[in-house]
Order: sequence, then structure tokens, then C-alpha cells
Amino acid sequence: MKISKRTQDMPASAIRKLVPYSDAAAAQGIKVYHLNSGAPDIASPDCVKQALAQRCANFHHLSYTNSAGLLELRQGLIEKYYRKVGIELELPELIVEVAGSEAFSVAMEIATDPGDEIIVIEPFYTNYQTFAYLHNITLKAVHTGIHDDFRIPDISEFEKLLTPRTRAVLISNPCNPSGKLFDKEEMLAIGEFCRKNDLFLISDEVYREFTYTDAPHFSAMNLPGCEQNVILVDSVSKRYNLCGARVGCIASHNKDVMAAAVKFAQSRLCPPVLGQYAAIAALDTPDEYFAQVRQEYIRRRDFTVARLNAMEGVYSPMPYGAFYAMAELPVDDAEAFCKWLLTEFRVDGETTMMTPVRSFYKTPGEGINQVRIAYVLEVPEMEKALDILEEGLRAYPGRTI
Amino acid sequence: MKISKRTQDMPASAIRKLVPYSDAAAAQGIKVYHLNSGAPDIASPDCVKQALAQRCANFHHLSYTNSAGLLELRQGLIEKYYRKVGIELELPELIVEVAGSEAFSVAMEIATDPGDEIIVIEPFYTNYQTFAYLHNITLKAVHTGIHDDFRIPDISEFEKLLTPRTRAVLISNPCNPSGKLFDKEEMLAIGEFCRKNDLFLISDEVYREFTYTDAPHFSAMNLPGCEQNVILVDSVSKRYNLCGARVGCIASHNKDVMAAAVKFAQSRLCPPVLGQYAAIAALDTPDEYFAQVRQEYIRRRDFTVARLNAMEGVYSPMPYGAFYAMAELPVDDAEAFCKWLLTEFRVDGETTMMTPVRSFYKTPGEGINQVRIAYVLEVPEMEKALDILEEGLRAYPGRTI
Repeated sequence: MKISKRTQDMPASAIRKLVPYSDAAAAQGIKVYHLNSGAPDIASPDCVKQALAQRCANFHHLSYTNSAGLLELRQGLIEKYYRKVGIELELPELIVEVAGSEAFSVAMEIATDPGDEIIVIEPFYTNYQTFAYLHNITLKAVHTGIHDDFRIPDISEFEKLLTPRTRAVLISNPCNPSGKLFDKEEMLAIGEFCRKNDLFLISDEVYREFTYTDAPHFSAMNLPGCEQNVILVDSVSKRYNLCGARVGCIASHNKDVMAAAVKFAQSRLCPPVLGQYAAIAALDTPDEYFAQVRQEYIRRRDFTVARLNAMEGVYSPMPYGAFYAMAELPVDDAEAFCKWLLTEFRVDGETTMMTPVRSFYKTPGEGINQVRIAYVLEVPEMEKALDILEEGLRAYPGRTI
Repeated sequence: MKISKRTQDMPASAIRKLVPYSDAAAAQGIKVYHLNSGAPDIASPDCVKQALAQRCANFHHLSYTNSAGLLELRQGLIEKYYRKVGIELELPELIVEVAGSEAFSVAMEIATDPGDEIIVIEPFYTNYQTFAYLHNITLKAVHTGIHDDFRIPDISEFEKLLTPRTRAVLISNPCNPSGKLFDKEEMLAIGEFCRKNDLFLISDEVYREFTYTDAPHFSAMNLPGCEQNVILVDSVSKRYNLCGARVGCIASHNKDVMAAAVKFAQSRLCPPVLGQYAAIAALDTPDEYFAQVRQEYIRRRDFTVARLNAMEGVYSPMPYGAFYAMAELPVDDAEAFCKWLLTEFRVDGETTMMTPVRSFYKTPGEGINQVRIAYVLEVPEMEKALDILEEGLRAYPGRTI
């Protein structure tokens, strides 16, 4: 019995493939500091817990919902987009998805036929590559560099990648993994590029609230003249610390896009109803919640980046969005180093887990000595985790300094 | 801006594509009896509600779980399979999925490369066709007929469909939509066919508890010599009336299958955690719950089938599993009739919704005058719904008698 070649050749998740090693370490009683995954330790809003407990105590059975999601949730999200992002959506222009993962997978399939191409900006969220593989899409990457603050290059770099098979540009803003926050001019340039070349612009904005400059986040949905191009991908995961709820959405003014999204939605019947209940309750989250969370992340970010740059041979630029710091390490191979930390290296029975980012780049050789560090723990925990990293760098056999 | 051809050509869900018409009827204040979807009205077990309310009152935030699902759930399911189905599974032989939908989609991709073929038994669950389309798989159908009690034909009918590209047989047992329950001999024959021809046997057993004969359900996992062939698809949706939870699983003794399933699981990060909490609590469901549910379905089934056959020109064979009755109606086109009921026909401000099953068949012309009726309402409600159907049949302009 042979499994298919397409699944044999499918890339393993770079973020999750070290999990068996951290599980093994945990099973040995080792404490692992998880800086590898964008899973913060911050409490969900109180209003979510209360409403959810009430719904769960009183339900009769859990029925399927409308494939597009509960009406109450869709209406609430539309009201939220109007108030917070300044965009007006009709009811058929938004569908609830099984988190951001389903939303961008569906958006990619809607934009492309097998063999088509999507332009991404490297480093990019590695699962874009996984779904590109599954849907037979080629990603073409515009490069941004760690020593250049991940600045978006001139639009001519995008034009160089255009072929007759280019169908879309896919961005995450703020960017996972680089923490890059796109400014208005960059967004206008990308929007104009998509408009002029008849490309979809798939905009993954799940980190919209996590910005650390004074300029407001500029949503692709606000790009003038791009109403038919933009497909918004969103999620409650990071915003409300509800990663496990698996609820997100896709939104577009393009009627054909949404008609196609309905068919995908119906094929998997419905998004999880308990997660939808949580998302409905989360609509009532007070603004102070976000203000507090933002202050906390600024504290963690400032500590993390300063601590990283204080280590010999380490370079980490300041990120202005999301909750990731990229770091260049003095090691031969960051993946081997991350695995070694999990399997070999302990400080007082503890170790640190990070994500190697080679697979976040398309350009061969790029990112080989870089890691993504999610600053998702409180500062005292981050401190311990980064102390272990520094000691590990000194002890690692493959160190380059 | 053009959407991709693959999504333009994607078939709409036959079960859900009438939903906009029922929504419109409901918006007009019309009561719609939903016999269209396998969404029962029976209460979930009390233990689920209690445990869930407790978990929801006390959680701090909702983190991602292991991509394979919470350990507690996986261990509990394995223990359950041992006790209830008599099979022994190791931990890596089971992965929690986003309900049966994800489980069979993943199983189909693991079994096939683009252009490969899967043998199904028609009528089959229509979403098999949707995912076959998305994954570029051709379904080849062994026919079973409504006037023949959906009896499985001789294995020579399967052999006729074999080509060098055949990779798997996909069954649902008990069968949605036909209610067919496979007996041990039929299962042994299909298992031997798969073993001999090196095919995967994807066995969708989400209705395992819903059987109405004295013979126990025979799981494909118990087929001797087929340990490497069988991929089990399961779900908590129907078993515990938790359709909205979106939790199921895939299980196989085949290590390559499970290694591939891990990669798929990691790409979508994790199954919904609140649904997993519900599924963990459901493991404590007492046997009396199933006994009561079974008696209730037998009552509904007997009423439904008798009532259908008492209508002029209607034929409905007795189903022995699941909670669907198939019915042949005296109409030109069952889909047009179902739509007409929703858009045109009312009895005292009420109407009935059913699922036309033409798309549950591959053979051209088959099933054109058939519907699937989910007997998921209590008998007094079923009675009203079926009274409306009978009156509708008399009034429908496209009636054939």
C-alpha cells in the first residue's frame, strides 16, 4: 500500500515539525519555553468566558450553523469592520471560516488554477507554501532583508516577477514572521500594481491590532480602486487570544469571489459553533483590553530585541507589528541548532524552543541562520528563555563564532 | 478580475444549495420543516453540557492544541475503540480532525494522486464528489438501486471498474444517504477485493451507533489482513448530537498514512479546542443514552417509511442504519420539486425541505426523481412535514401521476 506522491512530497510544517522533540523533552520532565509558536499566554477577554459559560450551560444540542457562519456573528463582524476599519460590507461579502488557515487556503484556490503563480514577500508565513503546494500554485518571492529592516523594495521588483500566470499578490500585514508593518505608501503602491495588472490582492490582516507605531494600520480593504481585487483574510485567534477557537473570516466586495467562497464553505458544512459563540462574545471586548495587550507586547518586544542584540553575534531588527522578532544567530544551521536545544541542551532542566525560518524564504540559502522568536511569554519568562538561548549559543558545536 | 476556473466549475453542495430559498422562506415568516440535513434535534448528553460549562467558566485563554488533538481526547478515543469496536490502536494511529469532512478529504488525498480513481457505491454522500473534484480524483460508482434495497452487488461489479489508476474504495457504513447497513459478508468481500488489488479502503463510519438490526455493526478496522489498507473516518457529530462541534478523527494502522495525516493536520494548526472539550466529555456518555436515541430513531423511521409508502406514487425502502430514508417521488425532477416547495408551496404558513439526490449518483439519469429525507424530527413534527409533502405532491405542476 503506497500513499500518494503528492502527500509523500508535501512539506512538513516548519513551525510544527520540531514538536515531537519538544514533546519528548516535556515527557522527560524538561520545561520548554515555547517561543516557537504564535500562541500567546494572555487571557481572553472576560466577556468571552462569561458568555461562553452561559451558552454552554444552556444548549440543547450543537447543530450545524449556516455554512457562512451564524448570522449574529456575521452581522457583528460587519458592524466591527465599519466602526474599526471604516469599511462597509454587505452580508454576502463576508463568510466565517475555520480560522485564518482556511480563509487564505480558500482565497488562494479562488485566485488560481493549477500551475498559476502568486507573488509573496519573503520572509512569509510558511504555511502559505504548504497550501501553495497542495493547490499546485507557484510562489514567487519579492525579497526583503533582515539587515534592511524588511523594507518593501520598489515596485519594479514586483514587476520583474510578473508572468502570464501571475494571478495574485499575497501579503500579511503586519507580517508574520518579520514584524514588518506596511505603511500607507507601500500599500498604495502594491494596490496600484494589482489594479494595473488585474491581480487579486490577498491581504492577511490577522495581526491588525498589534502595531507599535503612531500611524494607524492601513487595511487593503481601504485601497481606492481595488474593490474587486482585494480578498481580506482575518481571524479572532490573535486578537482575542482565542487561537484554539478556530474562527476567522474572508471578506471581499468581489461577488464572484464570495460566490466561490460559499461553495467551499458548504463543502465542509460549517465553522465550529462553540468557537463562533466565543467570537460573538468577543465583539463586546472593551477598547481597554487592546490597549493593555498592546502595552504588554511593547514591553515584551523591547525586552526581547534588546536582549537578543546584546548577545554576541546575534542581530535582531526592531519589529513594528505582530509579536515576532527575527534574529540572525551565529550558527551554521538554525534548524539543527533549534533541534539541538530540544534534544541535547538543558539549563537546570529547562530549554528553549524557537522556529527556524529557512522555509519562510523562497530564495535558496536565505534565512539559514535565522530564527523567529514569538515574544508570547511574560518578560520574566522571556528572560529565562533568552538566557538559555545565549548559553546554548556558547555551547553549540555548530557555532560560527 | 476573474476567479479561477477550478472554483467556477466546482459543484455546489446539493445538500446546501437550497439553503438560500429556505432562508428566504424563513425571512417571510414561513416555518420550514428541515428534513434536508442530517442535523438531529435530539439533546446532547448531559455530561457534555456540564463539563463544557465548567471548562468555559474556568479557561484563561484558548491556546492551539497539538495538531493531532488534545492527548486526553486521543487517549479517550483509543480506549473507546478498544472497548466498543474491539480494535487496538497505538497513539500515533489516530488523529483528531475537523469533523468527518476533513477526515475523508485528507484520506482521499493520501490515497490518490491527481487523475487517480476511487470506487464508491452509489448513491453516496454527495460531498465525496465535491472533494474528489477539488483533489482531481475520478469517482467510479458501483450501482445499488432503490428497488433492490440498495443491496451490494457481486464483487465482479467492483472488478469491472478496476483500472491501473484505481487507488481506493470509499464506503459509508451505515450509508448516507441510503440507510444501507453492510453485513459481515459484504464487508469481507470488499476487504478481500481491496487486499487483493492493493487498494486503500476508506471507511466512513460516522453512523456506527445508528443500526436497526440485531447484527452488530462490522467495522472495516476488524477486517482480517486489511490492516494496511483501511483508513477509518469517524466523527462525534451524529453520535452525540454535536454536529456543530466539528470534531472527528482519522485512524489507521498504516504508518505512512498517519505520517501523511500529521502533515495535513499541522498545516491547519489544530482542531477546534472547545469542540474537543465537548468530545472529551462525551466519552462519558452512558450506554442508556444510545439505547434511548436508537429507540427514538426506530420510532421515527417506522413512522416515516410507512407514511411515505402510503402516499400515491411514492416508494421508500426500509433503511437499516443511519437516519435517512430514500424516497422515489412521482415528480419530473426532485430538485425542481424541492425548490418549488420552498419558494411556492405553503400549508398554513409552513413548508417542508428535503434533499434531492441526483448528485448522489454518478450514473447519468439515476436518482432524478428521488429525495433523501432525514428523519431527524420528532414524530408529531415528521407527521406535519410529511403531510405537507403529500399535499405538495398533489399540487405540484410537474407531478407525473
